[in-house]
Amino acid sequence: MARLVLKFGGTSVGDIERIRNVARKVKQEVDAGHEVAVVVSAMSGVTNQLVEYCRSISRIYDAREYDAVVASGEQVTSGLLAIALQDLGITARSWQGWQIPILTDDVHAKARIERIDTTEIDRRMKTGEVAVVAGFQGVSHRNRISTLGRGGSDTSAVALAAALGAERCDIYTDVDGVYTTDPRIVAKARKLSRITYEEMLEMASLGAKVLQTRSVEMAMKHRVRVQVLSTFEEAPGSDLPGTLVVDEDEIVEQELVSGIAYSRDEAKVTLVGVADRPGVAARIFGPLADAAINVDMIVQNVSEDGTTTDMTFTVGKADLDRAVQVLEKAKDELSYRRIVADSDVVKISVIGVGMRSHAGVAQRMFKALADRGINIQVISTSEIKVSVLVAEEYTELALRALHTVYGLDQA
Amino acid sequence: MARLVLKFGGTSVGDIERIRNVARKVKQEVDAGHEVAVVVSAMSGVTNQLVEYCRSISRIYDAREYDAVVASGEQVTSGLLAIALQDLGITARSWQGWQIPILTDDVHAKARIERIDTTEIDRRMKTGEVAVVAGFQGVSHRNRISTLGRGGSDTSAVALAAALGAERCDIYTDVDGVYTTDPRIVAKARKLSRITYEEMLEMASLGAKVLQTRSVEMAMKHRVRVQVLSTFEEAPGSDLPGTLVVDEDEIVEQELVSGIAYSRDEAKVTLVGVADRPGVAARIFGPLADAAINVDMIVQNVSEDGTTTDMTFTVGKADLDRAVQVLEKAKDELSYRRIVADSDVVKISVIGVGMRSHAGVAQRMFKALADRGINIQVISTSEIKVSVLVAEEYTELALRALHTVYGLDQA
Repeated sequence: MARLVLKFGGTSVGDIERIRNVARKVKQEVDAGHEVAVVVSAMSGVTNQLVEYCRSISRIYDAREYDAVVASGEQVTSGLLAIALQDLGITARSWQGWQIPILTDDVHAKARIERIDTTEIDRRMKTGEVAVVAGFQGVSHRNRISTLGRGGSDTSAVALAAALGAERCDIYTDVDGVYTTDPRIVAKARKLSRITYEEMLEMASLGAKVLQTRSVEMAMKHRVRVQVLSTFEEAPGSDLPGTLVVDEDEIVEQELVSGIAYSRDEAKVTLVGVADRPGVAARIFGPLADAAINVDMIVQNVSEDGTTTDMTFTVGKADLDRAVQVLEKAKDELSYRRIVADSDVVKISVIGVGMRSHAGVAQRMFKALADRGINIQVISTSEIKVSVLVAEEYTELALRALHTVYGLDQA
Repeated sequence: MARLVLKFGGTSVGDIERIRNVARKVKQEVDAGHEVAVVVSAMSGVTNQLVEYCRSISRIYDAREYDAVVASGEQVTSGLLAIALQDLGITARSWQGWQIPILTDDVHAKARIERIDTTEIDRRMKTGEVAVVAGFQGVSHRNRISTLGRGGSDTSAVALAAALGAERCDIYTDVDGVYTTDPRIVAKARKLSRITYEEMLEMASLGAKVLQTRSVEMAMKHRVRVQVLSTFEEAPGSDLPGTLVVDEDEIVEQELVSGIAYSRDEAKVTLVGVADRPGVAARIFGPLADAAINVDMIVQNVSEDGTTTDMTFTVGKADLDRAVQVLEKAKDELSYRRIVADSDVVKISVIGVGMRSHAGVAQRMFKALADRGINIQVISTSEIKVSVLVAEEYTELALRALHTVYGLDQA
């Protein structure tokens, strides 16, 4: 007997028949003798509709009211799933964020969970009652409904699992696990049976959409074992059919590289002929930060004559136009010659905790790309990943090449 | 300067443009210097959809979960209207039932309001802030979301008006007031400028759908002046464009009859040849009460031979089949000869507090119907109304005749 938190996303509860299906899955765990809490998202499409309502009323809306509006989607599914569970003979009740309560700060629309009072849920779970918790939402210290930002239900689930001391948090979604890379592009992509928190964090922040970044951070911090698995496929006979996100210690044979992520959501900006003097970076990136534009990769070229330099960096594609505007406004102060913007780029990253102890991982990447005539525009590295920016047209070629080079292809 | 509670129904907040329209109406009252609280229903169609979700999951569902699901509709509109008001430069915030709180009993799906804590709303209204309250919902002593039953937003509004000591509760709807009778049937129907609580209560319970019965009871109990008016029509220059529901004292010239209501939602049952002995009524209506079937009009004919009698009564059309079943099951005990069921009937009622002091009102009704060859099947009376059951095909003829006879036709 274990204590489990199960989380079901929007497509998993997308209509009444699917909610029934979720109830059957929950029942399996209850019948197996487990103590179960369930976290649900809104029915797919509902949150978008509610967000659209808010936006169409006012371009600048009160985030507290936005939260009251959008949190209603999870309220509906929590009630419906409780009814579906009761219909299968299972004792269950719904819990809204304010009922538990899931206390958050008051940064509305992207609140952070501060504390979950599990006293009552814990007591009831011990009696066999299933707690059906509305994901994505909490309550602020001022007694207002708060939400955790898009994808926040993953975070709700992991936080609840941590607070309840659950043995595992199962994130049910529409894919059956975490893959070595995108299987729609690389047919030989393999499902990983295990991946470390650190790797999953890089995968999530580098474009793999399977888990929300903050939920992985929280899982890592509280050492919550997370499984990603499919709501729609059964894997009979398998105890852990999905991908388990766990501590490094739990992975016996660690591959050098676990996965290859890519993000098309990048754009490159180059400032040509910037005066090369102390403080130039601060003068460039200060105005961007003020405009809430996140800068990711940064490269500063060595200047030939020692008086000017080229500064290249990447921003989110959606921010490109604003970034260029901000820099054009600051042209006099920055005294660069011209701006070159390019949105036809892709960031490709190889990720693996094995890199820590093995040299040559980056070199192998550079060579594989060079062999295929792919020019690397920007490089950035961290302890467990190497990212390169290349022309977008090479996405598929680069992914397939790297997948083979690092020995990730399916047998 | 007055303190007002404004209530807007589902069609009034049916889409984003209409919510903006509501915001403009609220702004007019704020600009006029009034302290304003607004009560909103769910967008039209939303509650039905949510009810349908619950029903399609389980025929017998937990009313506490049903309440969590259906209360979400009002949550959405309260947040959206707060945003729309802020967009017009008005300080406003949404309030859910549990935030105020509006405390109810725990008879879920048809809860009764026990207490409204207005401390905080009252304080804020005095500073000019508009309270946008989600109608239809409250919170039980067990901290579960409760709802007040269909049309409950009217009750929320009146209860809030009473608790806030508001000067008036304006119920905005899709008709511009209370009419002497249904203007779709009687072209000469007149809008009433004033009507008493007692009359409104009879009108509401006899089929006029403009206000929920319980809200009128509550208005009467707490002497809340209620105005029914249209969201969609402007009545320039008029201070009170709708119909005011008030205490009898406020109506200077009271008509003998104020209105004529009708209900097609009736069915007639006759038990022929029931043994005429003491306790027969109890034996008939006991099983119906046990089956939660409401019986309305009752007539017991005098038996010719002194040993049997005919018992005629009406039930709601939706309950007719069940009523017949219940009575057939009890046939041995009741020892009647046969059951005659008839659903092609209509109940027509003339209503007026003036009846109390004037004789002959019923007689005039009976004569008017007889003159037109309309046979009266059942009669029931109260202090301020006379109801008759006639064949449904006479509905229009009877309404028009009575409207003229009682001098209600428009000049």
